Amino acid sequence: MKLKPLDDRVVIEIKEEVAEKNIGGIIIPDTAKEKPQIGEIVAVGTDEELQKLVKVGDNILYSKYGGDEFDIEGKKVKIISRSDILAVIG
Amino acid sequence: MKLKPLDDRVVIEIKEEVAEKNIGGIIIPDTAKEKPQIGEIVAVGTDEELQKLVKVGDNILYSKYGGDEFDIEGKKVKIISRSDILAVIG
Amino acid sequence: MKLKPLDDRVVIEIKEEVAEKNIGGIIIPDTAKEKPQIGEIVAVGTDEELQKLVKVGDNILYSKYGGDEFDIEGKKVKIISRSDILAVIG
Amino acid sequence: MKLKPLDDRVVIEIKEEVAEKNIGGIIIPDTAKEKPQIGEIVAVGTDEELQKLVKVGDNILYSKYGGDEFDIEGKKVKIISRSDILAVIG
Amino acid sequence: MKLKPLDDRVVIEIKEEVAEKNIGGIIIPDTAKEKPQIGEIVAVGTDEELQKLVKVGDNILYSKYGGDEFDIEGKKVKIISRSDILAVIG
Amino acid sequence: MKLKPLDDRVVIEIKEEVAEKNIGGIIIPDTAKEKPQIGEIVAVGTDEELQKLVKVGDNILYSKYGGDEFDIEGKKVKIISRSDILAVIG
Amino acid sequence: MKLKPLDDRVVIEIKEEVAEKNIGGIIIPDTAKEKPQIGEIVAVGTDEELQKLVKVGDNILYSKYGGDEFDIEGKKVKIISRSDILAVIG
Repeated sequence: MKLKPLDDRVVIEIKEEVAEKNIGGIIIPDTAKEKPQIGEIVAVGTDEELQKLVKVGDNILYSKYGGDEFDIEGKKVKIISRSDILAVIG
Repeated sequence: MKLKPLDDRVVIEIKEEVAEKNIGGIIIPDTAKEKPQIGEIVAVGTDEELQKLVKVGDNILYSKYGGDEFDIEGKKVKIISRSDILAVIG
Repeated sequence: MKLKPLDDRVVIEIKEEVAEKNIGGIIIPDTAKEKPQIGEIVAVGTDEELQKLVKVGDNILYSKYGGDEFDIEGKKVKIISRSDILAVIG
Repeated sequence: MKLKPLDDRVVIEIKEEVAEKNIGGIIIPDTAKEKPQIGEIVAVGTDEELQKLVKVGDNILYSKYGGDEFDIEGKKVKIISRSDILAVIG
Repeated sequence: MKLKPLDDRVVIEIKEEVAEKNIGGIIIPDTAKEKPQIGEIVAVGTDEELQKLVKVGDNILYSKYGGDEFDIEGKKVKIISRSDILAVIG
Repeated sequence: MKLKPLDDRVVIEIKEEVAEKNIGGIIIPDTAKEKPQIGEIVAVGTDEELQKLVKVGDNILYSKYGGDEFDIEGKKVKIISRSDILAVIG
Repeated sequence: MKLKPLDDRVVIEIKEEVAEKNIGGIIIPDTAKEKPQIGEIVAVGTDEELQKLVKVGDNILYSKYGGDEFDIEGKKVKIISRSDILAVIG
């Protein structure tokens, strides 16, 4: 991924399509009413405090209302701010 | 639970289903019009000030408007911010 | 009451039902168009500045738009923030 | 009046009913399209800076959109914040 | 005028009725589509910084969305904040 | 122009009518869908930091949503804040 | 380009028309549902901190909700703030 997010943003690859699978130890059943919003961090912003909290490769839960979504290189990508990162998985 | 919430968030397991039972000494009658939103904290965020106020295992009242709800491992889970934690029970 | 409110919140027991009676020296006539929102503080939050302003047992006027209402142990209870406490009665 | 307002609030007795009379030297004609919102301060909050600006007995103009109105002891009373006090009369 | 505005407010007498006349050197033609909101300051608030910027007698342009309007002593009066004073005329 | 804007405001003369002409080196074709909002600064506010950034005579692009518009001395005039000045032309 | 943006703004030339092409190493397929908002920075504002993060010639992803769009010299141009710059490409 050739994106360098500014400030306290991260670029995540959206993983909803594989939400039934086991991601970072979390098993999401097919019957889940509210599927978690799961993404894998592919780039971390320039903010130093953020860089201590998350790193490339982390799977995260994120707020569905946060950030802009793009289709890039055939992947669904979202750029979200630290305030939309709810939790790191695993 | 394998979630590490960021900043001043907590992960709670929602306990509305057992709201008629005795939770932390609070008895909720079946006839209650406004059932309290009760959850058990299963993970506390990285914020140090928050870690002095609540701990894993605490039952809390929380604001029904706060946070995102997920179905994870067959449980109803919510990730809320400190500002949505109204009171600790017991 | 086994609730420990966080930060600058108080737990109040709502006293609208007895609003016609004499509360803290304030007589509310039946004919009042806008009945005051009166509650008795049953628990004070962890905020130290708030603890100097109000105490358990105080009757207060509060903003009707503030806070979440619950039915707990057969009582109507509200958890409100300092900014919704308008005045102490008596 | 047995109300002690918190912080930067004042309790005022609303005087719209006598708006045609001479209040603090301001004569309000019957034909006025936009009658001023006039109240007499009956209690001043705990905020020290506010206590230097207004005192019990002051007639004030206040913003009609500010504060909660109550019927207390047969009087129309409003509890408003400093930001809703427009001017002191007289 | 017997009004003492609080903080960073001014009391102005509205001069729209004479907008066709020459006010402070600004000639407003009858055909103007957007007539300027012109007022004369009749009282300045307690804020010291504001007192350096404007004085009683100044004609000002003000934002039409700002402040509350009153009819007082047969005059149209408005109480507006510093942020609604756009420019001093003349 | 006899207007002295307060704080971080500027008075601009609106130049949309001549938008097809060459203004400060920018040629705006008749076919432009979104014509730039161009104005010439005719007065600068009292704010010292603003006075370092712009001066009387500067042509600027400004946000169309900002500020109040007036007809003064046969000219279309707008009073806008620093936050509505997008760029200086030329 | 003869525009000098104020403060923390940048002027960008919009590149949506060539979104199918390879920009800074990012290949955008025709079938993309949410085409990224890509622009090339043609001018950087006066803010010094911003000047360390981006420079003229950078291709960026930007928030589609940010900034005002203009047609200037036959080009689609947008003036956006730092908070609308999501990431630098390449």
